[in-house]
Amino acid sequence: MKALLAGVAEGRIDVAEAVRALRDLPYENLGYARLDHHRALRTGFPEVIFCQGKTPSQVAQIFARLAAKSPVVLATRAGEQVFACVKRAVAGAKYHPAARCITLQKEPAETPAGPPVAVLSAGTADQPVAEESRIALSLMGHPVRALYDVGVSGIHRLFDHLETINECAVVIVVAGMEGALPSVVAGLTPRPVIAVPTSVGYGSSFNGLAALLAMLNSCAPGIGVVNIDNGYGAAALADAIVRTGRERE
Amino acid sequence: MKALLAGVAEGRIDVAEAVRALRDLPYENLGYARLDHHRALRTGFPEVIFCQGKTPSQVAQIFARLAAKSPVVLATRAGEQVFACVKRAVAGAKYHPAARCITLQKEPAETPAGPPVAVLSAGTADQPVAEESRIALSLMGHPVRALYDVGVSGIHRLFDHLETINECAVVIVVAGMEGALPSVVAGLTPRPVIAVPTSVGYGSSFNGLAALLAMLNSCAPGIGVVNIDNGYGAAALADAIVRTGRERE
Amino acid sequence: MKALLAGVAEGRIDVAEAVRALRDLPYENLGYARLDHHRALRTGFPEVIFCQGKTPSQVAQIFARLAAKSPVVLATRAGEQVFACVKRAVAGAKYHPAARCITLQKEPAETPAGPPVAVLSAGTADQPVAEESRIALSLMGHPVRALYDVGVSGIHRLFDHLETINECAVVIVVAGMEGALPSVVAGLTPRPVIAVPTSVGYGSSFNGLAALLAMLNSCAPGIGVVNIDNGYGAAALADAIVRTGRERE
Amino acid sequence: MKALLAGVAEGRIDVAEAVRALRDLPYENLGYARLDHHRALRTGFPEVIFCQGKTPSQVAQIFARLAAKSPVVLATRAGEQVFACVKRAVAGAKYHPAARCITLQKEPAETPAGPPVAVLSAGTADQPVAEESRIALSLMGHPVRALYDVGVSGIHRLFDHLETINECAVVIVVAGMEGALPSVVAGLTPRPVIAVPTSVGYGSSFNGLAALLAMLNSCAPGIGVVNIDNGYGAAALADAIVRTGRERE
Amino acid sequence: MKALLAGVAEGRIDVAEAVRALRDLPYENLGYARLDHHRALRTGFPEVIFCQGKTPSQVAQIFARLAAKSPVVLATRAGEQVFACVKRAVAGAKYHPAARCITLQKEPAETPAGPPVAVLSAGTADQPVAEESRIALSLMGHPVRALYDVGVSGIHRLFDHLETINECAVVIVVAGMEGALPSVVAGLTPRPVIAVPTSVGYGSSFNGLAALLAMLNSCAPGIGVVNIDNGYGAAALADAIVRTGRERE
Amino acid sequence: MKALLAGVAEGRIDVAEAVRALRDLPYENLGYARLDHHRALRTGFPEVIFCQGKTPSQVAQIFARLAAKSPVVLATRAGEQVFACVKRAVAGAKYHPAARCITLQKEPAETPAGPPVAVLSAGTADQPVAEESRIALSLMGHPVRALYDVGVSGIHRLFDHLETINECAVVIVVAGMEGALPSVVAGLTPRPVIAVPTSVGYGSSFNGLAALLAMLNSCAPGIGVVNIDNGYGAAALADAIVRTGRERE
Amino acid sequence: MKALLAGVAEGRIDVAEAVRALRDLPYENLGYARLDHHRALRTGFPEVIFCQGKTPSQVAQIFARLAAKSPVVLATRAGEQVFACVKRAVAGAKYHPAARCITLQKEPAETPAGPPVAVLSAGTADQPVAEESRIALSLMGHPVRALYDVGVSGIHRLFDHLETINECAVVIVVAGMEGALPSVVAGLTPRPVIAVPTSVGYGSSFNGLAALLAMLNSCAPGIGVVNIDNGYGAAALADAIVRTGRERE
Amino acid sequence: MKALLAGVAEGRIDVAEAVRALRDLPYENLGYARLDHHRALRTGFPEVIFCQGKTPSQVAQIFARLAAKSPVVLATRAGEQVFACVKRAVAGAKYHPAARCITLQKEPAETPAGPPVAVLSAGTADQPVAEESRIALSLMGHPVRALYDVGVSGIHRLFDHLETINECAVVIVVAGMEGALPSVVAGLTPRPVIAVPTSVGYGSSFNGLAALLAMLNSCAPGIGVVNIDNGYGAAALADAIVRTGRERE
Repeated sequence: MKALLAGVAEGRIDVAEAVRALRDLPYENLGYARLDHHRALRTGFPEVIFCQGKTPSQVAQIFARLAAKSPVVLATRAGEQVFACVKRAVAGAKYHPAARCITLQKEPAETPAGPPVAVLSAGTADQPVAEESRIALSLMGHPVRALYDVGVSGIHRLFDHLETINECAVVIVVAGMEGALPSVVAGLTPRPVIAVPTSVGYGSSFNGLAALLAMLNSCAPGIGVVNIDNGYGAAALADAIVRTGRERE
Repeated sequence: MKALLAGVAEGRIDVAEAVRALRDLPYENLGYARLDHHRALRTGFPEVIFCQGKTPSQVAQIFARLAAKSPVVLATRAGEQVFACVKRAVAGAKYHPAARCITLQKEPAETPAGPPVAVLSAGTADQPVAEESRIALSLMGHPVRALYDVGVSGIHRLFDHLETINECAVVIVVAGMEGALPSVVAGLTPRPVIAVPTSVGYGSSFNGLAALLAMLNSCAPGIGVVNIDNGYGAAALADAIVRTGRERE
Repeated sequence: MKALLAGVAEGRIDVAEAVRALRDLPYENLGYARLDHHRALRTGFPEVIFCQGKTPSQVAQIFARLAAKSPVVLATRAGEQVFACVKRAVAGAKYHPAARCITLQKEPAETPAGPPVAVLSAGTADQPVAEESRIALSLMGHPVRALYDVGVSGIHRLFDHLETINECAVVIVVAGMEGALPSVVAGLTPRPVIAVPTSVGYGSSFNGLAALLAMLNSCAPGIGVVNIDNGYGAAALADAIVRTGRERE
Repeated sequence: MKALLAGVAEGRIDVAEAVRALRDLPYENLGYARLDHHRALRTGFPEVIFCQGKTPSQVAQIFARLAAKSPVVLATRAGEQVFACVKRAVAGAKYHPAARCITLQKEPAETPAGPPVAVLSAGTADQPVAEESRIALSLMGHPVRALYDVGVSGIHRLFDHLETINECAVVIVVAGMEGALPSVVAGLTPRPVIAVPTSVGYGSSFNGLAALLAMLNSCAPGIGVVNIDNGYGAAALADAIVRTGRERE
Repeated sequence: MKALLAGVAEGRIDVAEAVRALRDLPYENLGYARLDHHRALRTGFPEVIFCQGKTPSQVAQIFARLAAKSPVVLATRAGEQVFACVKRAVAGAKYHPAARCITLQKEPAETPAGPPVAVLSAGTADQPVAEESRIALSLMGHPVRALYDVGVSGIHRLFDHLETINECAVVIVVAGMEGALPSVVAGLTPRPVIAVPTSVGYGSSFNGLAALLAMLNSCAPGIGVVNIDNGYGAAALADAIVRTGRERE
Repeated sequence: MKALLAGVAEGRIDVAEAVRALRDLPYENLGYARLDHHRALRTGFPEVIFCQGKTPSQVAQIFARLAAKSPVVLATRAGEQVFACVKRAVAGAKYHPAARCITLQKEPAETPAGPPVAVLSAGTADQPVAEESRIALSLMGHPVRALYDVGVSGIHRLFDHLETINECAVVIVVAGMEGALPSVVAGLTPRPVIAVPTSVGYGSSFNGLAALLAMLNSCAPGIGVVNIDNGYGAAALADAIVRTGRERE
Repeated sequence: MKALLAGVAEGRIDVAEAVRALRDLPYENLGYARLDHHRALRTGFPEVIFCQGKTPSQVAQIFARLAAKSPVVLATRAGEQVFACVKRAVAGAKYHPAARCITLQKEPAETPAGPPVAVLSAGTADQPVAEESRIALSLMGHPVRALYDVGVSGIHRLFDHLETINECAVVIVVAGMEGALPSVVAGLTPRPVIAVPTSVGYGSSFNGLAALLAMLNSCAPGIGVVNIDNGYGAAALADAIVRTGRERE
Repeated sequence: MKALLAGVAEGRIDVAEAVRALRDLPYENLGYARLDHHRALRTGFPEVIFCQGKTPSQVAQIFARLAAKSPVVLATRAGEQVFACVKRAVAGAKYHPAARCITLQKEPAETPAGPPVAVLSAGTADQPVAEESRIALSLMGHPVRALYDVGVSGIHRLFDHLETINECAVVIVVAGMEGALPSVVAGLTPRPVIAVPTSVGYGSSFNGLAALLAMLNSCAPGIGVVNIDNGYGAAALADAIVRTGRERE
């Protein structure tokens, strides 16, 4: 932008052109969606497609456009119908049914480098959300340590893994029902903990509200909470944390 | 009642008298309150005075009437003003400021017998509720093992006490904020756990709602929950549990 | 564990082996689930499978693994599809459609012994939850007294059964809508009452919230509340209460 | 109004005058309040002053204006400060501290006639709301049968009074905490029941929400619910019920 | 019951028999439901079957049993599948699709007598709830004046009907969305108003909560509120109000 | 109405006739619905049919009746089944699947005149609600500037359009999830902003509650909020704003 | 800004200076507050001071700074203590106790011109919020028609004023409790209606939630809602509506 | 611990002693509180005293004990009364009234090193929470960039500071009311964002709920949320993030 202003000052760029350039920031207008190709520059990962509330053909079209500009593409909350539509539009797209994600990785993934990220889940039913985190992190190039079904009602299952957890840069903790696992983990490790409440539960879990409130009210320091079932959001935050550390090395 | 009906059958008791007798069940009408002197028979402990919402002089009058018929009296949620009023009406009444309770024990307490009850609290600020449980249990004649400030963010504080906990017949667990302690305790002990959420916390604790929901949604089996800050209620349930075991011996 | 430390002290067990032994606590890792075979020792009953949020084949695999180690297995919230899958994997599994439970009892059940547990339900629509309690209690070996449709709007239906209720060690009370039945029962019996709110109702019942709040706010002492529709949870608490009494005999 | 239109037709009343007459319906404009002197005609009782949110001097001025036109005046939710201000403005105004009401009855009250109204309250702390009902009903000229502290945890206290209740035309039932009393009463009497939840309680009573929901979800037919703590509202509904019966005699 | 006691006194009835008689109050035990044949005596109308949460065959069996003892039967919240099942069991049962009710009227209905009841609905979509009220009232023998789609956004539609409304003994007002109609009606008529919030609406109507709160907070006196969508409940209250007036004639 | 009264005064109209005329305000009674043909006069646009909760044949009949009297007709929340039914009843009806609207425009639309209205949406999934606004505004004869997918997480997309926005008379801003867009827009433009929360989101969006609360709590002045997903409501308010300006020209 | 860019292009302004100019948009940094002197240009009225949550001396300092640059200043939610502090800092500041506002009008107000704005309030207790609207509108230079205490329970009070309402450009409607007044008003006038819920009420009004929900769910078209008690917000929206009309004249 | 086990193996430590050692983890029991001196080792900062719900003398005693073992001490939510009590107990304790914190820094603070942390606040009233973050971060040894009053309604205030923000390792964003600032910031910077909702607002802000929900539902990736008003919690998370980066250097 400074370059642009300098160009204007030097007469190389005229005012109308400058205005147009500022307007033509690299996003693309599909009418119903504006694709932010610039985001990869800003946040290190291209825009992610949240499929819920979009038609399969909208998803497929957005997916194709992103695939044209980015080496990796991720779509979350994708049903099988959506994938059927994407598969026809983009060769190489892959479906992960447990996580309900569609991914595209155009070049063979490099061996993940940098510090690993831990992904813990409390119960079997929390696994889809944890898998969404794991897949997103892998696509972002991070090694992942996945530890599933280590919930708080059998706390000895957790203690076995403390060393593994402490070797990670960040710990994502996925839990539904009473949502107590992040508190226990954050009381045991000095690592930043990202707590993901899930809608797993019934009755007074109120679709994840109980777990969400528990995590926000944790008495253990060092916890940041994301939305209910937001596995991708946790991965994005973990990624930002690892990147902010890496850039300072 | 069978005796009554038999008396009617044998002509010893006439019908009008029987109707009156059934009406004269042993409670006493103060106009604004009916004292249930019969409750001690039914539930093993006289009616407890919940002071909130009653005037000091109402409390004092009710306290005096109960003291006339019962060897022990308990009033909860009592401010110092209320105690000042009770003290004038009933000699020997004692105030417990931390628990905001007034007690009367007319005869020297016997050495508590039977199996002990554990009372755990998660944080310093949960102590008043835990104290309300402890005092009520003592008045009911149970030995109490009080373990305070053993919350989940420093879970090693808890493990030291597992043996003590397992020696008790029931475990009362008092916790505010994220309310995770009962889940952890119930995952470690086979004893019945009574969970007491407290209004300790701020923001999205919503005056104890977060802890309440966490406790209701615990993934550990064997937990019963009482109302927020209801220390006495937990004691009453613990007492019923110990009594139901004792009666079968 | 003391034995283990002693073994270490005596040189019979070396340090690395001790660490491994502590790690190999008897749970089994299926990848998406860790089965806690140890729980039967700790809490007297093997881990229960909560089917909601698990795929039928996950349930079947978990069911089979538990069946390999435990004489009884219980799965709750199981649809018919889930049962079809379990049946193929485990001979002898039995479906209880009203309660939506699958059970396995490898040896012929002994005549239930010990004090009975009462299970009351307020209305016809509360019966599935009450049945979940009843089946779980039977599997745990307790005699059950089931009294259904004795709700508070026709309170005379309840009075007939007071004697039966008082002969039980614990009373489970299942109610939806206004959830008043536990208050009335706890005012009549000295037994501990476990209140189970159900999602039965409409409009401002808010899927069981009304009943839940009523039970938590009961003015009658001696009530512990479990989550909405949590019939198994009530049974597990009742079981813990009976066991804690039995162990002291 | 027909008379007015007839007058217009006959030329006795001109159009402008008719418009003015329609505008001059008998309410009085104090600037910050418009007094509806017409309401006594429509609903049988003059407008009631709800003091909360009004300044003492506003209340006093409104009270004085109503007193100028109506034989009885009622102000609810009045603190002592408000009464001090009203007393200076209106001779004969009387304060009822338990109910927080101010009343004026310019002529000696006639002996109340017509069928009585029952006012039941569950606990001692519910009494102020019940008293607001009782005072309003008395001012409206109805005989009242007040039965206080007959709550559901000692249900035998209630049965003594069934005959009295059935002799009344309407039953007002005031209860806080779990709010179960109206369900029990409506299951025992064929009379219409007006349920008044109170804010009595703590924790998950959420200032009367628990009682409100319980009453709305009652499984017993014949219950109408008013707002939390709305003792006057219950009296107004009871009054309308008695009047609609009386007018048809 | 007095007769029974007298019989005992006179020796005509022995004690055991009296106990049995008291136990055999006229309800019938179907295992999953206890039918309260006595209710017709107490509240003037037989028990109503709320179909939601019951299986079609349970409904059919209950319907048949009630039909054996009562001249009229009413089932609410009945889908077409339920009716198909009832029709096979009970000849003469009739389905009302708009109201989702099944009725049986064994003898030709008498011409309804007594004062009429008004049933108002605010919008077209509120009609099913209003119809449930209308059908229940007709079955109870009351003349009904149904005025549909007279909502508050076109208030002139309402004013045409004021005279009709005032000629009724009670006014049932059914409204969803903002639920303002009962306030307006109660400000215009001296009759008791029964307000029925409906779940009609979207977004922040929260399935009828907005309408429910509006009705509970009405500034107009003389309103009793029932549960969301509870058309039958409003009819039952209206019936109790008319009966209490009639009995005093 | 003055004319009517004048006619009465002059004897040209008799009283009974006047009463009838006042009653025959131009709405039409279909039994389950009263059509307010007068509304077009009052508010400049005929009554809109909200299809949710109405049967397809009810919608078709109402649509036909409105079409008989009005040059344009609009039905919102219409599924394809509803349209199939309407199409058979009214030639020329057109379906807009993205917006779920049915429209009829009997005469070729005039070129829209007057100041334009801006319709902004934050994300792709918010588009159906925005489309409902756009279609309604077009039918009302307003030029529309639609700017979709200009949400707050890529705020540069918005700045390009500020000039366009400022040239409009009103700005409708449609947003789900965190609902931040109206705040940002209202901080940049002096135009009145109509904020429409949508139910787009998941977990703690609670079906649009999060967006609704954010919009109500905006720190930017000049925002009016409508119900969740209420695209038509926003259009109606924008229309009223434009008309009130136009009438004063 | 175009001028700036042109200046850069012509060499009159160098790049660094341009950057600084863009940074020095006319707001002023007090450390704890940044005053947006530019807002008057953008939105036609200087920034308003919301006093709640600020210390009296912070308010006084902000007030003084705004007074230095703007002919009018408005502070809302100001207690008397705050005013005492402002008065010392700014001569001519005036306190409006009913509205809890502080105003400064440095030059004698011109006779308000343009179309008037109507401000209606439902009850006496809603008046402070209505007064906040009225004072803000006056300061903005609009004629105001204030009509207080015209609530829905005595709807005839409202009809007298319809002509006055229709002569205004916008109608602000302030109401607590059931919040029905905006629906009724919007059903009678074609003007845009700004609905302001107030926290007036008790019990299930939940501090204005009931009124807020009612207003959002209004079935009458043409209503925009602002936050509870947000009298100033309504005035700001009304001002934007009048200005957008005026600018197009 | 390995050392301990090795000691046991080598016979240097006997079993009983090992058990005692494991029990004597370095926390200190004050009866009502157990001080976790070990936490500094685990999480890099000693236990923080949350004063709310503790008596001044409890705080003072805890503060003194921590001061005996730790070079820095922090107490949050401390009123002036609490500080008066602490000051008497601990020389050198310092009060920060805006943040309501008490700090002790026994040695002169080193010049903060490592990457800075940004602390942004949206409005003047959010400053106390932001100050709590700032003070905690300083005590932990981090350089802080505080940018206050840069809220979303004047978004140009924010753009000036983007470069500063991007130079920080983490960004804490404190906002009340609609809570939109974190979304906007996270859309502009690749740094991890910690969102702190505050209770600033009124009406439908519901004490910070609106801001909390907005932050949890942000459409911008890379945001972790802490509890309402939890300035310290945000600092602790930022500290963990910086430390996890630093340890890997």
